[in-house]
Amino acid sequence: MKMIKGGITAPKGFKAAGTACGIKKNNQLDLALVVSEKKCSAAAVFTKNVVKGHSLKLTIDNLKYKTAKAVVINSGNANACVGPKGDEAAKNIVAFLSEKLQCNFNDVIINSTGVIGVALDSNKICTGLEQCINNLSTAGGKNATEAIMTTDTYPKECAVSFFINGKEVTIGGMAKGSGMIHPNLATMIGVLTTDADINSELLDNVLKKAISKTFNRISVDGDTSVCDMVVVLANGESNCKITSNELEVFSKAVEKVCTNLSKSIAKDGEGATKLIEIYVNNSLTKEDAYKIACSIAKSPLVKTAIFGEDANWGRIITAAGYSGADFDPDKIDIFIGDIKVCENGTALLFDEQKAKDLLALDEVKIIVDLKQGKYCDRMWTCDFSYDYIKINGSYRT
Amino acid sequence: MKMIKGGITAPKGFKAAGTACGIKKNNQLDLALVVSEKKCSAAAVFTKNVVKGHSLKLTIDNLKYKTAKAVVINSGNANACVGPKGDEAAKNIVAFLSEKLQCNFNDVIINSTGVIGVALDSNKICTGLEQCINNLSTAGGKNATEAIMTTDTYPKECAVSFFINGKEVTIGGMAKGSGMIHPNLATMIGVLTTDADINSELLDNVLKKAISKTFNRISVDGDTSVCDMVVVLANGESNCKITSNELEVFSKAVEKVCTNLSKSIAKDGEGATKLIEIYVNNSLTKEDAYKIACSIAKSPLVKTAIFGEDANWGRIITAAGYSGADFDPDKIDIFIGDIKVCENGTALLFDEQKAKDLLALDEVKIIVDLKQGKYCDRMWTCDFSYDYIKINGSYRT
Repeated sequence: MKMIKGGITAPKGFKAAGTACGIKKNNQLDLALVVSEKKCSAAAVFTKNVVKGHSLKLTIDNLKYKTAKAVVINSGNANACVGPKGDEAAKNIVAFLSEKLQCNFNDVIINSTGVIGVALDSNKICTGLEQCINNLSTAGGKNATEAIMTTDTYPKECAVSFFINGKEVTIGGMAKGSGMIHPNLATMIGVLTTDADINSELLDNVLKKAISKTFNRISVDGDTSVCDMVVVLANGESNCKITSNELEVFSKAVEKVCTNLSKSIAKDGEGATKLIEIYVNNSLTKEDAYKIACSIAKSPLVKTAIFGEDANWGRIITAAGYSGADFDPDKIDIFIGDIKVCENGTALLFDEQKAKDLLALDEVKIIVDLKQGKYCDRMWTCDFSYDYIKINGSYRT
Repeated sequence: MKMIKGGITAPKGFKAAGTACGIKKNNQLDLALVVSEKKCSAAAVFTKNVVKGHSLKLTIDNLKYKTAKAVVINSGNANACVGPKGDEAAKNIVAFLSEKLQCNFNDVIINSTGVIGVALDSNKICTGLEQCINNLSTAGGKNATEAIMTTDTYPKECAVSFFINGKEVTIGGMAKGSGMIHPNLATMIGVLTTDADINSELLDNVLKKAISKTFNRISVDGDTSVCDMVVVLANGESNCKITSNELEVFSKAVEKVCTNLSKSIAKDGEGATKLIEIYVNNSLTKEDAYKIACSIAKSPLVKTAIFGEDANWGRIITAAGYSGADFDPDKIDIFIGDIKVCENGTALLFDEQKAKDLLALDEVKIIVDLKQGKYCDRMWTCDFSYDYIKINGSYRT
């Protein structure tokens, strides 16, 4: 399996485009379209937030049919909490696009990301979509990826290719999100495409499994905004059939794409200066490992200490302690990078300068070893800087 | 019932002192002692954190006897996560003090607040305690209150007096904590004193009830650090017996003291520029109201928006949505102060300038009305500013 250039248009039979339709200011790209030549199997995972955006609600309905041909996403406006006119806007856009593409209404996936509570102008989107349709191309993947960004500082895409039974299969993906750190912006959207030939049921299983290890392991804030979605479209154009025999290889490839995109999101967390990987090892239950990893990843105190390159492991053990997980505090070991700073719940003398050097790197690893059971988990998050406050103190205005 | 001057030494029969024993730098006060002439009934509530400081663990043991005569608290060092020598240090201090005061070992309450993982020098504390004992006075309450501060920007004390059956009863209190915002510092300590004559069982009930509405309703971070404690001592010197008949008045007074101290803590949250009161009304269950209030109070996005005086209620509805509470998003109303910004889950047009003016005040009120049931809750928190990052990026070094 190898990483290749490109993203959502790397697999055969997918084209894309991105344009500025006038929702964002200053002619910034704000509308993305991805279209498959053939109708695809589709699977998706949605936010668990009780509040859901109007565009997302329509997509949840449409995806009950488990097929799709196109994905349309706008940024700059979440189309959320605006009442019936939000549902209408979403329907107008999907009706327009499905007519233009001559596909079923339910084969269009729509989502919106941006500010909540502001009416979405579907006319602007439809005008933009005409342009997008005219500009659909393989090269257009780049513009589409940029068009879904909100406070992201760089576009996030990747692709892998691999061989199954002598046939090349490609999986591509794009994502947006500056960490869960931004749940109100209808934060995180991921779109995966593949030319594998796989039915929607298998595809759904593969996606859910990959997400549980990747997109659901990037941190902070309860992490389910009102428009979160990861969707995968498989158009079969590689002529490579994925059955239970080929599932392992295919699953690994999907996970690889999801890992790459998830880490990009965590690393690009608002104001972030570094990626933090948190490993929790040897807990009594699976849930305990998750709770502790989550609690550490969410802790503003841990995140500010790492921003300050301060090896303040007391904050790590404290976050573990209030996570709700069951563990023996007198057994816990904590590592910053490869430096053990706490053994059996007790402070160790360690080289502060070496720890500071490790914390100054782009990627920081924290390991918590409970030495009690056999379960492990891992989360990605980022540090917490002045810029986080700056970005979020005045996002809307 | 009236608020009066002073704090822990306002009730009859309590003296206190504070000194600089050399744990903190620059001769800052770091050791507090409170002593009652008579042995007291005592009750306390402790952190639920799995990890507990060594001093706190000894206090939990000692308070099984439900009596106390003295409270010793040091700041600058949490005496946590240092292994058996931490337990020894706590025992040495309590043994020393109980001998000096000629009371039982178990009648001394000890706690420590500050950095985790650094050994506590019990000799320094004992030397400091000799000074404190010599300086015990009613006026010493002020120094004691200052001596328990860590990143607090002002001391927190208050007292109330009231009459029951013609006898004056006084309750005083001191607290430290810059919001749960600081769980790793063994954040929050509260000490209440009263000259009421009340048995420890009733006292325990009164304290738990008051705390559930006050100290347990200040926000952020799972909020249980490794040394959190609120303790109350009742020495009976008012000669006013509290039985079930007098319980309501007494409970209200305890709640008043706890409310005052809790709001002071939230308002003095690290880097805070304002106090935020969050009301959640008319939920289906008690737990739902709590979950939503907590989720909003913890949200860095809500807190940065309020720091930026931005009426970004999308972040409030989002935090409610991911709180885990059950509610109908199409019924929710949201108010900022007295301005309704969202009705039935849908954006309202509102006067942005007026909202900005309300958000610029020292105290900001957010009301979420679910319009579904009869349960309510209320939390206090603070905004999230640049100074939070500054304080926490380099606390230890």
